[in-house]
Amino acid sequence: MAVTLGLDFGTNSVRALIVRCVDGRELGTCVVDYPSGHQGVLLDERDHNLARQHPGDYLVCMEQAVRGALAQALQNDSGFRPDQIVGIGVDSTGSSPLPVDKTNTPLALDPRFKDNLAAQCWLWKDHTGHAEAAKITAKARELRPQYVAKCGNTYSSEWWWSKIWHCLNTAPEVFDAAYSWVELADWIPAVLAGVRDPKTVMRGVCAAGHKAMYAEDWGGLPDKEFLGTLDPKLAELRDRLYNKAHDASTPAGKLCGDWAKRLGLKEGIAIAIGEFDVHYGAIGCAVEEGVLVKVIGTSTCDCAVVSAQKSIADIPGICGIVKGAILPGYYGIEAGQSAVGDIFKWWVEVVCQGDAAMHEHLTAEAARLRPGESGLLALDWNNGNRTILVDQRLTGLVLGQTLHTTRAEIYRALIEATAFGARAILERIEEYGVPVKTVVCAGGIAEKNPLLMQIYADVTGREMRVARSAQACALGSAVAAAVVAGVHADFATAQKAMTGWKDVVYKPRRAEKSAYNKLYKLYMKLYDNLGGVRNVNLGKVMKDLLEIKESTSR
Amino acid sequence: MAVTLGLDFGTNSVRALIVRCVDGRELGTCVVDYPSGHQGVLLDERDHNLARQHPGDYLVCMEQAVRGALAQALQNDSGFRPDQIVGIGVDSTGSSPLPVDKTNTPLALDPRFKDNLAAQCWLWKDHTGHAEAAKITAKARELRPQYVAKCGNTYSSEWWWSKIWHCLNTAPEVFDAAYSWVELADWIPAVLAGVRDPKTVMRGVCAAGHKAMYAEDWGGLPDKEFLGTLDPKLAELRDRLYNKAHDASTPAGKLCGDWAKRLGLKEGIAIAIGEFDVHYGAIGCAVEEGVLVKVIGTSTCDCAVVSAQKSIADIPGICGIVKGAILPGYYGIEAGQSAVGDIFKWWVEVVCQGDAAMHEHLTAEAARLRPGESGLLALDWNNGNRTILVDQRLTGLVLGQTLHTTRAEIYRALIEATAFGARAILERIEEYGVPVKTVVCAGGIAEKNPLLMQIYADVTGREMRVARSAQACALGSAVAAAVVAGVHADFATAQKAMTGWKDVVYKPRRAEKSAYNKLYKLYMKLYDNLGGVRNVNLGKVMKDLLEIKESTSR
Repeated sequence: MAVTLGLDFGTNSVRALIVRCVDGRELGTCVVDYPSGHQGVLLDERDHNLARQHPGDYLVCMEQAVRGALAQALQNDSGFRPDQIVGIGVDSTGSSPLPVDKTNTPLALDPRFKDNLAAQCWLWKDHTGHAEAAKITAKARELRPQYVAKCGNTYSSEWWWSKIWHCLNTAPEVFDAAYSWVELADWIPAVLAGVRDPKTVMRGVCAAGHKAMYAEDWGGLPDKEFLGTLDPKLAELRDRLYNKAHDASTPAGKLCGDWAKRLGLKEGIAIAIGEFDVHYGAIGCAVEEGVLVKVIGTSTCDCAVVSAQKSIADIPGICGIVKGAILPGYYGIEAGQSAVGDIFKWWVEVVCQGDAAMHEHLTAEAARLRPGESGLLALDWNNGNRTILVDQRLTGLVLGQTLHTTRAEIYRALIEATAFGARAILERIEEYGVPVKTVVCAGGIAEKNPLLMQIYADVTGREMRVARSAQACALGSAVAAAVVAGVHADFATAQKAMTGWKDVVYKPRRAEKSAYNKLYKLYMKLYDNLGGVRNVNLGKVMKDLLEIKESTSR
Repeated sequence: MAVTLGLDFGTNSVRALIVRCVDGRELGTCVVDYPSGHQGVLLDERDHNLARQHPGDYLVCMEQAVRGALAQALQNDSGFRPDQIVGIGVDSTGSSPLPVDKTNTPLALDPRFKDNLAAQCWLWKDHTGHAEAAKITAKARELRPQYVAKCGNTYSSEWWWSKIWHCLNTAPEVFDAAYSWVELADWIPAVLAGVRDPKTVMRGVCAAGHKAMYAEDWGGLPDKEFLGTLDPKLAELRDRLYNKAHDASTPAGKLCGDWAKRLGLKEGIAIAIGEFDVHYGAIGCAVEEGVLVKVIGTSTCDCAVVSAQKSIADIPGICGIVKGAILPGYYGIEAGQSAVGDIFKWWVEVVCQGDAAMHEHLTAEAARLRPGESGLLALDWNNGNRTILVDQRLTGLVLGQTLHTTRAEIYRALIEATAFGARAILERIEEYGVPVKTVVCAGGIAEKNPLLMQIYADVTGREMRVARSAQACALGSAVAAAVVAGVHADFATAQKAMTGWKDVVYKPRRAEKSAYNKLYKLYMKLYDNLGGVRNVNLGKVMKDLLEIKESTSR
């Protein structure tokens, strides 16, 4: 009875999940919140772009989470024994690079740098490097267009080089003290495997892919000449990084004795290569060609796969097409929306100053509205636009308010805005040959908010499904562990055995779909003009919304 | 010791004010809320455009208000006697036409029509006639461009003919039953004077002016041929309306015995011609050439005067330039913003679900912000744009939200939006030769909200003053009564004796003015594109706001 362990390092907490390989049954799980900062995130009130994490949190919380999951599994299943665990899979947020010394120890754990924000892990949603991102984009477009062609022609402030370069520019003492940098998704497996040299850390192509501008086509990471045009020190750093990144068919190592003891697991069990949370999440949602997986949380990540046997064009505005980034043997297509759940949370908790009960109350009230009835239209850019515009320097918009507009109407308009943003992504990838027959959603919002799921179905015109597991990311990691441990022959077999969808199906409704088609056209007008795509005349938008509003009450 | 009575019929209540003519001392006042509908306004939840009032409320509440003011004056001043009151002045909202029968009785008081919304008084902010307004605009531009040249080339849904025609189109039984229509501002003086025939009601040029398209240049109201192109029944109605409208140098009549008894006043005292509230309000604020009066309430009305000795051009987008509309011998220039206090009230009470304490709390928090610090920009069109766009089919907009945006930041952005709207009006009239040296504000907001006053000073770059009287409209009516009763020789003398400004002066501050100049440019970009003026590229607006925001924290 083989069992694997999935570890999912999220934005606020780490989850451990113990899964039976024969049928995906989840025997035990435990979530431990990071103790540092605000809900695990180190902030700087003078700079909203900054978001860091203390690396010590990962280790302390991982140990607690694994111990907790083991305890639960032992309680749930009298046949379970910890030594049945044959492999570990790890996923994390990203791009979340952390500076390390020669022993692969984070600088943040060095007393000299303990309070230095630049020495911490640079969390995915840190946007401090936006100026660097813009410069990298400009330089790459000029000198190495292929480097950005696969990431929508725009390099993001959320990614590896923007962050490392920003560290060099603003905290040179940290940059100089760092022997190397490691993605969190690679660092955890390396820690578990007892790897003490950054150069021997097994790096995943998922994180390396477009985020570190890695591709085998051009020999791995960006060449030193190019990096030297940014800063000579970045060119020097390249020698202390890596030459090869791997997909999930390659193991990251074996569990070392120290960590086997700390976690209460068998020494020497297989550790899968690390991937980003949503990539393993897609695997945990049974991704295959024709399926678009949406992991809807604070932000949304979209994943799809296309067989590597086919050729696939670069897709403008889609920020990641990387071979092996999700499933070995497939191109992984990655897209996303920089804020989704975070927007609803902002509206309810920051503006309306409500709690979970108000979320429910507003959802119930919003559910009574028809599409267009509020006369409102919003843009979902409160945290920038990751896909298609790849522009963090965008902000939110709500339009169409009267003196009667209610908070529930705005709440619904914000949900609709995220649905329109989702549709823009879906239509873009389809246009470039990525088929989407079904959309599968994972995350708490997908499970708990049928209103949102129905709006998404009506707006996108697709059937929406919900992942069977509430822990799709950790489950995907456990699937990878099952493959790397040899329990299943390949990912397709492992996914079939261990993953799936719930029975509920949200189908697009004709009248609502038609109403949303009209609203979507108006959304795209705002999107194109405010997003800098093209100069659109918006002089009729408010009037069109009023007409749609009035038509709903006829 | 001559004393006059000013009666001010507002949106939610009527105020009576008893004023000493020698020095403007206010001896007694009383406000009575209209009992019908929602805060005195009859609404239709299926149609947000609809706003009516029950005419019976005016009569009942007027009597109570006068009785209350008399009681207060008797208590305050032992020398006061009701028979010292030598004149009555009346102002009201407008354009607020009401359908009457042959005896000048409102149809709403006829049991057949008591529950018919079309038979009530059509309150100024009723926008149900927007389609009719658009047709009148188009017809006038085609056939009689002079009719709309003086009202910004656009006829509004808030005005006389839009409302009457909409009644004809949607409630023909009411239109057919109406012998005539009377503006509320004319109807109250006629009632007090005991006038029983609509054709002998003294009509004020203030209400007639551009609102009923009246001008001596073209022989009064629009000609029958033109009205016939709208609807033959409107042409017929013209014969039952009036040929001549008067400025405030002409009395409306003398107090009849019945009403003298009901009010406890002397029979036969002079009644001034009715004007709209803000026009008499401007007089109560000591308006003269070079002074712009802003009456800031639920909406804002701007009034200025230019000597009729001069010639004045038509001003695009300024909805009223009428000789004698405010002061006899002067052109009255009228402009306005369709919602100001109403927008703040909407934000605090409808969205934030707060009370007066929250208004204060948000004001205090907003006062700590610097211009541009929130990164927000809003449009003040929640109730349409009265001036310069003359377009009720516009709605609100808030732009620049992040995941950290607070309710106080949005509150301030809404105040700023109304300030930017105010600046657009001020700059437009100045451009066409109406001098503005000082801005004088009246209304509760001007008195109680120094934050708003300072923002207006910083945004407009003008000194802001506050009217001495808290009841500027009723005071202006009392001034008109003092002139028509012969207590003062003319308006200039009466204003000098009876009106003035408070000592406080809000001066524009250099740094804030400069920051607001930048934000105003962005506001005008949104204004022009969303308002349909011209197609402006908005692709940099969010980025510019972020840059301004970041520069405030440096």
